[in-house]
Amino acid sequence: MKDKLVITISREFGSGGREIGEIISAKLNIPFFDREIIIKAAEDSGLSEEYIEKEEQKVSSGLLLSLSNGGYITEECRPLSDKIYVAQANAIKGYAENGSCVIVGRCADHILKDHSDCLNVFIHAGRNFKVDRIMEKYSLDKSAAERKIKESDKRRKSHYRYYTSKEWGNIENYHLCLNSGELGIEKTAEIIIAAAEMI
Amino acid sequence: MKDKLVITISREFGSGGREIGEIISAKLNIPFFDREIIIKAAEDSGLSEEYIEKEEQKVSSGLLLSLSNGGYITEECRPLSDKIYVAQANAIKGYAENGSCVIVGRCADHILKDHSDCLNVFIHAGRNFKVDRIMEKYSLDKSAAERKIKESDKRRKSHYRYYTSKEWGNIENYHLCLNSGELGIEKTAEIIIAAAEMI
Repeated sequence: MKDKLVITISREFGSGGREIGEIISAKLNIPFFDREIIIKAAEDSGLSEEYIEKEEQKVSSGLLLSLSNGGYITEECRPLSDKIYVAQANAIKGYAENGSCVIVGRCADHILKDHSDCLNVFIHAGRNFKVDRIMEKYSLDKSAAERKIKESDKRRKSHYRYYTSKEWGNIENYHLCLNSGELGIEKTAEIIIAAAEMI
Repeated sequence: MKDKLVITISREFGSGGREIGEIISAKLNIPFFDREIIIKAAEDSGLSEEYIEKEEQKVSSGLLLSLSNGGYITEECRPLSDKIYVAQANAIKGYAENGSCVIVGRCADHILKDHSDCLNVFIHAGRNFKVDRIMEKYSLDKSAAERKIKESDKRRKSHYRYYTSKEWGNIENYHLCLNSGELGIEKTAEIIIAAAEMI
């Protein structure tokens, strides 16, 4: 495996992408970044973690959706979420410079497009597989789980489109797309590890 | 690896999907089916190979495109191409029953949707990678190669949509999608082999 291979994982909500990232990180003995990136970004930008989370949510669920639907963005809102994005992008670039790692979400595939060694992965799954997992994980009934999946993926799609001008989940943005529902969580992780060790 | 694992490969024109299928077949020592399916189908249906190829081309480039664009299909044409499809589908099911194999194209992922052990793969690549390969393979200039890729993929997309009612190249139809332009032909084959050996 390359010295500084960054495995970026984008994933549909409920597909187990985060868990897959953690398995890969543990088996390859390389760092795993997800929420930690928020904390690092918060430290760098001088914004509190709590504040970033609140602002991110606001931007994703309202502003970006309106944007993606042909709406507009107000100046007083944009600079703050851009500042958060830039702080996170800098954190991600810093992690990539330090050596091999796994980064889940946060447009890392796009942020690291000039990084020499990336394996960009997208994890997806069939609806039943995702709904069952979310019902169990969050103790929700079926319709609440379906709603949560739909809202979350819509947010991720809008966020990705806004910052990358590309389509989230379109095969052309990734080296490898895997169906964790069909392959299983463990085997999906193993296939990604096999790929990482080959490049 | 399972006893009767069928690796189906769908691929963008120029992505090297056929070559990848041949590498997998050779390394796993299992049969490879592509044009052979046509011959088998021809034998079973009593239609000549030459005739099937002619009809397939006609249907794909004219009739199916018009269909996918909201056009209609004439009764005198449809039954013949359906007969060819059914003959090919029966051939594919027969191969799958006989043991592990690699099948390239021909909607095999859909035809074998009830087969217990399939690994459905889609191979894609960036434009430059595909254009360079097609220019070299067919001794074409750049614009002719681009046109050939576009026409061929359009035909495959229409054919797939007509017979499966699904979108060719959409991640949800496959277990694994790989970018052969980024990963390389050999490594793409190796990753699929690794996946096949795990399931």
